[in-house]
Amino acid sequence: MQAARLHEYTEEMSDALTVEDIDRPELERSDHVLVEVAGAGWCQTDNHVIEGMWTEYVPQELPMTLGHENAGVVAEVGDEVTLVEEGDPVICHPVQTCGICRPCRLGEDMYCENSTFNGLTTDGGFAEYLQTNERAVIPLPDGVDPTEIAPHADAGITAYHAAKKAVRELNPGDTAVVVGIGGLGHIGLQCLEAMSAADVVAVDIKDEALELAERLGATHTVNSSEEDLGQVVDDLTDGDGVQQILDFVGSDETAGYGTEIAAAGADQHVIGYGGHIHEPCQALVDGELSLKGTLVGRYAELQELVALVDRDLVELHTSRYDLGEINDVAEALEHGEIEGRAVILPP
Amino acid sequence: MQAARLHEYTEEMSDALTVEDIDRPELERSDHVLVEVAGAGWCQTDNHVIEGMWTEYVPQELPMTLGHENAGVVAEVGDEVTLVEEGDPVICHPVQTCGICRPCRLGEDMYCENSTFNGLTTDGGFAEYLQTNERAVIPLPDGVDPTEIAPHADAGITAYHAAKKAVRELNPGDTAVVVGIGGLGHIGLQCLEAMSAADVVAVDIKDEALELAERLGATHTVNSSEEDLGQVVDDLTDGDGVQQILDFVGSDETAGYGTEIAAAGADQHVIGYGGHIHEPCQALVDGELSLKGTLVGRYAELQELVALVDRDLVELHTSRYDLGEINDVAEALEHGEIEGRAVILPP
Amino acid sequence: MQAARLHEYTEEMSDALTVEDIDRPELERSDHVLVEVAGAGWCQTDNHVIEGMWTEYVPQELPMTLGHENAGVVAEVGDEVTLVEEGDPVICHPVQTCGICRPCRLGEDMYCENSTFNGLTTDGGFAEYLQTNERAVIPLPDGVDPTEIAPHADAGITAYHAAKKAVRELNPGDTAVVVGIGGLGHIGLQCLEAMSAADVVAVDIKDEALELAERLGATHTVNSSEEDLGQVVDDLTDGDGVQQILDFVGSDETAGYGTEIAAAGADQHVIGYGGHIHEPCQALVDGELSLKGTLVGRYAELQELVALVDRDLVELHTSRYDLGEINDVAEALEHGEIEGRAVILPP
Amino acid sequence: MQAARLHEYTEEMSDALTVEDIDRPELERSDHVLVEVAGAGWCQTDNHVIEGMWTEYVPQELPMTLGHENAGVVAEVGDEVTLVEEGDPVICHPVQTCGICRPCRLGEDMYCENSTFNGLTTDGGFAEYLQTNERAVIPLPDGVDPTEIAPHADAGITAYHAAKKAVRELNPGDTAVVVGIGGLGHIGLQCLEAMSAADVVAVDIKDEALELAERLGATHTVNSSEEDLGQVVDDLTDGDGVQQILDFVGSDETAGYGTEIAAAGADQHVIGYGGHIHEPCQALVDGELSLKGTLVGRYAELQELVALVDRDLVELHTSRYDLGEINDVAEALEHGEIEGRAVILPP
Repeated sequence: MQAARLHEYTEEMSDALTVEDIDRPELERSDHVLVEVAGAGWCQTDNHVIEGMWTEYVPQELPMTLGHENAGVVAEVGDEVTLVEEGDPVICHPVQTCGICRPCRLGEDMYCENSTFNGLTTDGGFAEYLQTNERAVIPLPDGVDPTEIAPHADAGITAYHAAKKAVRELNPGDTAVVVGIGGLGHIGLQCLEAMSAADVVAVDIKDEALELAERLGATHTVNSSEEDLGQVVDDLTDGDGVQQILDFVGSDETAGYGTEIAAAGADQHVIGYGGHIHEPCQALVDGELSLKGTLVGRYAELQELVALVDRDLVELHTSRYDLGEINDVAEALEHGEIEGRAVILPP
Repeated sequence: MQAARLHEYTEEMSDALTVEDIDRPELERSDHVLVEVAGAGWCQTDNHVIEGMWTEYVPQELPMTLGHENAGVVAEVGDEVTLVEEGDPVICHPVQTCGICRPCRLGEDMYCENSTFNGLTTDGGFAEYLQTNERAVIPLPDGVDPTEIAPHADAGITAYHAAKKAVRELNPGDTAVVVGIGGLGHIGLQCLEAMSAADVVAVDIKDEALELAERLGATHTVNSSEEDLGQVVDDLTDGDGVQQILDFVGSDETAGYGTEIAAAGADQHVIGYGGHIHEPCQALVDGELSLKGTLVGRYAELQELVALVDRDLVELHTSRYDLGEINDVAEALEHGEIEGRAVILPP
Repeated sequence: MQAARLHEYTEEMSDALTVEDIDRPELERSDHVLVEVAGAGWCQTDNHVIEGMWTEYVPQELPMTLGHENAGVVAEVGDEVTLVEEGDPVICHPVQTCGICRPCRLGEDMYCENSTFNGLTTDGGFAEYLQTNERAVIPLPDGVDPTEIAPHADAGITAYHAAKKAVRELNPGDTAVVVGIGGLGHIGLQCLEAMSAADVVAVDIKDEALELAERLGATHTVNSSEEDLGQVVDDLTDGDGVQQILDFVGSDETAGYGTEIAAAGADQHVIGYGGHIHEPCQALVDGELSLKGTLVGRYAELQELVALVDRDLVELHTSRYDLGEINDVAEALEHGEIEGRAVILPP
Repeated sequence: MQAARLHEYTEEMSDALTVEDIDRPELERSDHVLVEVAGAGWCQTDNHVIEGMWTEYVPQELPMTLGHENAGVVAEVGDEVTLVEEGDPVICHPVQTCGICRPCRLGEDMYCENSTFNGLTTDGGFAEYLQTNERAVIPLPDGVDPTEIAPHADAGITAYHAAKKAVRELNPGDTAVVVGIGGLGHIGLQCLEAMSAADVVAVDIKDEALELAERLGATHTVNSSEEDLGQVVDDLTDGDGVQQILDFVGSDETAGYGTEIAAAGADQHVIGYGGHIHEPCQALVDGELSLKGTLVGRYAELQELVALVDRDLVELHTSRYDLGEINDVAEALEHGEIEGRAVILPP
């Protein structure tokens, strides 16, 4: 089968991956599931993987097929699988978990001690077929298109996970700030709207992004390259600051927003990464600010996100590309030139 | 009356405060309470105030009587006070709150929008008398000595507050790390022991501190100037890391412990301050580490701490000094030479 | 001033209250606030008070002016009040709390140990003026009409309080059941819609109520006098049952819904009262059902509800009556003949 | 192998079970585990099963081997099991869960939609061998004796689960009431002591039970056949009532304790069953009392309980019986004549 694989780490996106012919994966365990890929989203993390930025955090062996945002149709199942059968459309949570270790037993599958992560620690879905397991697939409701929903498998579920944590702390009259209205941020914003009555301030440096935010329900928008965010928040909140910050950018600058605009006891969710946090401890102590690292959401959260999509409460902007165009997509995202979320189609 | 006052910010502790004669405070509101001070704890924050380190965070006018850890006996009450009367022994929460603003209504009195903080934004208790209000005093149970309990008003309640947040996340079999077994840390350790069944690892650079920790119930002790904390934690937890870190030091080095020893989803409570946090955003994202700034606890938490003291579940090591020795105490603490918590006695 | 007062307990609504001339209340404390009433909602609890149903639960002295759902304009303030001044439009939380006792300090003002409850333990607002205190009044945003918002002071805040507890446990894809789409239920339903993405099933025995529910966003409606609720829920949830039940009726029959339609781990919020709970302990054990008594919400929750109203997320159906018609209203509600919420206007 | 089986429901305990020779279970799935039983606790629920009391709640086919509190040594494992191997000592959570359904994915394994319950819906451990699965076994730490720990598999984990829920709401200075210091209650009491600093009032009608409670750390004991519990609680709590009630008895009388002794906002955990709840809805509304049904705890909670046992924080009183004496044990428990927890030893 055709697959887009990384052979060595590089800063050069234009020929980062090699599209080549490899063997179709074999099912080796009773809970394995083979999915014929219908679409696979391209993510900023794919660029980070290509650059070698994850080598110090997870085990990684090259060559590897990238692609962690997958959906498709079940092609084959291991002999003890009961949840799905051949022909079922599914979305694939990117992490294959064991269901046995203590984190799994606590429902914290992202902390699974025996997991593999599609396209990060094992072969992913920029290919015709993807091997995953029963604990990673979610049957799709009727009428939900696998190609269209694929990016929710990671972009969506990460945004949902952060939004869900924020919502727990947001009361009517409170304000949340969403920083970065891109592939993840525009989903996070919709999740906040669907699950809370808080005011939402959208922050970006592109006016089109802010127009999208407004259309999706943002109460206020701020172009942070033109306006002073601190001043705007001060005016909007009578000097109180905001209760929740969702930083989908993670640059040096945005990482510092919390100490500038947070109300006492607020949380800044660190979702985007790439930049650094530089703060005196005292800046967190005064006002009890929390900086909370946030990863991909859990399997159960992906179920909840699928329910939101099924109820038309979250829409996703995608543009489709052939597998052969994959390096162009990598390059374009690097320069911020992808409209909506890119979905790679297998041949 | 005699009071120890700060007239200008200085790095020089040896003559930082002036002991002088000032007017005894007048009660101006129906809820005011005048307390004859029985003892006032000296805190690292007093050194920080003297150095001017709080000027950018709170409004401060000099000269000001320092002292935020106070206990004593009620000398006079405003005409609508019902909670206490003349002669009642009380401990004084350092913050006088309004009870009217939204944070107060949520029970979050540390976020009160109209508060004054004894010895930080208004006159404190290194004096014969302290003016405070009804919402800041807690009657002491029979048999609890005001002089002895005074440092709990800030050191104690800060440690308790952090421990209470940690305890909520600690199950039997989990591990908490307490960094710094000094004035706050040795209380935090005892609170963890009283309210959870987690294993507690005590970290310090002084062997006497670690001996105290062991006597107070620590499961393991680590002298971080001699042992590799990361390695020790790895061995103790089978490579899983620890669930909660309480950093009572807040130096550049200790601020980085979280990314080294935390289990997935762990919290590092930033209590001590003075140092800086320097981390890539990715280090928080991977493993969902949270850095949580932690302030003085609430009034209701001081009630709970008094209950712990009353049940002999928390002991406090104090050494007593006269008001005239106050600059010696400041100097000694600066050099880490105070044994237990220093309590200043009024003349 | 004119006031509608209860002189003795009776089952006879048609002449339950006496409209008579009494002295205007005097402010006695520095935090007292006198409100010129603009409107006062009539509540099922007023009928229960008239019947003497609260005598065993709270201290009550007759004669007493009823009326606990009040809003109006500040007419006079005690000399230490800072939150409002003469002329400010306000909604009045029905409970005057002390701000001093431990429950108040925890933010649990409904459990205040020194509270008075307008129209239940002290004179209420079916009158020209109401005496309350600073901790019970909330300034209204511009454009919010006191007469129109008055019933939110109790009906609204009770429904909001229950909905907020339910929302915490409701994920997208989950189902909540609202039993009784009357004065409280139709607000509770809107709060669920505003603050969660759960499916909502509305249950009533009147078709008009169900039509209102549908218009306000209910996913499904069930006329429980015609349909078998258990069967409907079974079909809707694939046999799983529902996660949250909000029972605004509280009859013998509705009190038993939980054991019939609840998913494992579900909550039934007991809000309406009048009926009884009769269940084997085992029926709660199997499936871990919780029956949670639910009272009026807190002051901070009324702030949140006012924010919802201000954002047009909750609408309230009211019909207005003169003070002289008050016994007709009592009678009409007893027979379920009030359209929307009745608001009594002072002369 | 020898097994004690129920052939028909009966009120007659003296010959309720038949000890007979049946086939040793075969492993049929890749995750199955065969355990050679070292001990199996006898539980009040076994009596209830014999009486047919669970037939309306769960599917049950006779004949069935009873016994849901099992521990032993792994005798054989399915070919994909990695957690344990032959020879490992284990305790067996009574519920075999699927790890696939949504409740399992949320960590709520007691709500598993595809579970079997040893000795309740499938053959249990009053036998030489027990078939279970990988998700139900917990390896024992060195030095923990399987025979001794067996009753923790249900009695222990049920008590722990209730205590853990209570602890979350218990602050120092609060009071918890433990009703029934028997097989479960004496464990629940120790869990409260290990994980909170609350005062604990133990209630029973047997003085020996109360003496045990006192030795295990209860702050107060009440013989409810001799003393008026309401009066005692009133005196102990200055009329405030208690924050948490753990009812391990579940009789008509104890089910009503909540409305008598609860503080505002308190929880009554309904653990024991057999009796009924009869309360006016208003009794729950006034004071916001919650009645919370409580089942066996989760797998992860059994891990936590094993950690408590391993740290000597929970001791268990057991008496041992041969399989042939099993009906005598049933009879004796019916008459309250078992000292500590009875453990049945296989031949």
